[in-house]
Amino acid sequence: MENKKSVSIIKIGGNIIDNATELASFLADFAALEGNTILVHGGGKSATKLAQSMGLVPQMIEGRRITDTPMLEVVVGVYAGKINKEVVAQLQANGTNAMGLSGADGNLILSDKRNHPTIDYGFVGDVKKVNTTLLASLLETGITPVFCAITHDGKGQLLNTNADTIASELAIALSGQFDVTLTYCFEKPGVLFDAEDDTSVIEQINPDLYAKLKAEQAIHSGMIPKLDNCFNSLSKGVKQIRIGHHRMLQNKTATYTTITL
Amino acid sequence: MENKKSVSIIKIGGNIIDNATELASFLADFAALEGNTILVHGGGKSATKLAQSMGLVPQMIEGRRITDTPMLEVVVGVYAGKINKEVVAQLQANGTNAMGLSGADGNLILSDKRNHPTIDYGFVGDVKKVNTTLLASLLETGITPVFCAITHDGKGQLLNTNADTIASELAIALSGQFDVTLTYCFEKPGVLFDAEDDTSVIEQINPDLYAKLKAEQAIHSGMIPKLDNCFNSLSKGVKQIRIGHHRMLQNKTATYTTITL
Repeated sequence: MENKKSVSIIKIGGNIIDNATELASFLADFAALEGNTILVHGGGKSATKLAQSMGLVPQMIEGRRITDTPMLEVVVGVYAGKINKEVVAQLQANGTNAMGLSGADGNLILSDKRNHPTIDYGFVGDVKKVNTTLLASLLETGITPVFCAITHDGKGQLLNTNADTIASELAIALSGQFDVTLTYCFEKPGVLFDAEDDTSVIEQINPDLYAKLKAEQAIHSGMIPKLDNCFNSLSKGVKQIRIGHHRMLQNKTATYTTITL
Repeated sequence: MENKKSVSIIKIGGNIIDNATELASFLADFAALEGNTILVHGGGKSATKLAQSMGLVPQMIEGRRITDTPMLEVVVGVYAGKINKEVVAQLQANGTNAMGLSGADGNLILSDKRNHPTIDYGFVGDVKKVNTTLLASLLETGITPVFCAITHDGKGQLLNTNADTIASELAIALSGQFDVTLTYCFEKPGVLFDAEDDTSVIEQINPDLYAKLKAEQAIHSGMIPKLDNCFNSLSKGVKQIRIGHHRMLQNKTATYTTITL
């Protein structure tokens, strides 16, 4: 039996992006990981701040930004430009040969513009296809791909795309060729029984416990699409999924949440 | 004797970037080129416009932008984000597998922060080293690299870098492995004897004619660093350099300027 190579996909959210000290600390831990790595980063608050300074009024529905043309220009500039290149430059300084990418680059992530029956999300994309051949070839070359949350439709349109979804779709697509570990890093030490109590980390969540915790409303709002993504990814071949603080990357904490089937 | 492979490096300036119709027309012509291609694009006016809308006051000395921290964030967002990804998405729609890159990505272009005796240019870079191994490997994979005018210093600092210089440094670095043709596309049909007369294209410029035209002040201001770059590149192994309108790319005009030694 052939041994698959491994790849670690790490997703960081806006709270790490928005805090320069946390970001530097995360990037040092990330750069110290061995083997194939991929980073996916969210946007943080700077797109909203920039939009406001330009007189644009950001609109959100159910936690998703409504992306009209001026807002798309802002998020592409901030996510694919400012944040992505700063992260890449810092990783290079940490000795990691990072390459910043949107889904348009190398046609790596093709999306469909979202077609919702009642809400017009604007230029928002749902991932359709990952170019695993090119991605595997970049990893083979020693490159660490760094994805921002921008994809394209292949017809010239850039699309704002949820970063959690990008991370899980990359994980699913690569799981045919690689043993994929997917790690969601955020400001908390894991999924919590009690959102107010950082010591209440749930060490392991399976579908039964998830159903129970949802019914009890211990898990709610933003954590639900995140965990739905996780179970979907596991069912499609991703080997391991973890949620917690980036301290876990270098084993500085044993506390985090593992998602299992 | 081994035949070298060829690569065409095309640089487009801000006047093409700023005009959506011209840009689309250029990108269609560029996408139709055969063989290995690399695109380098300048910034155009949108960084200045964005900076002004944010209340920043852009400063220029001798045609070079003085890049302080807020201005660097703007140019990185606009050049590496908004413009670069729009160009990439349009090339993808034209069937070219474009990949947008700054010099930080894959450590492709390493620069030194400019150290000038009297002017503090801020975060401006002078190219030190091109990672030709990775660049050749991307070309081999069928990728068309699309470079914006942002590089890095390898120590975590992004640097604003002249796009003409990036094009010529890429051309020089690749000329060891490839027969390199470097083409500067701009709004004019070539270098003109008389700046007011578009029919006065100089078909060929060699160092003698250049010296004469400079002495007569027929060639002046922005064209001088461009031509200095050209002669430097030719002396360092670049095979052919042309300046003119992008119509020449698909032989829609026979009028352009060739620079020769």
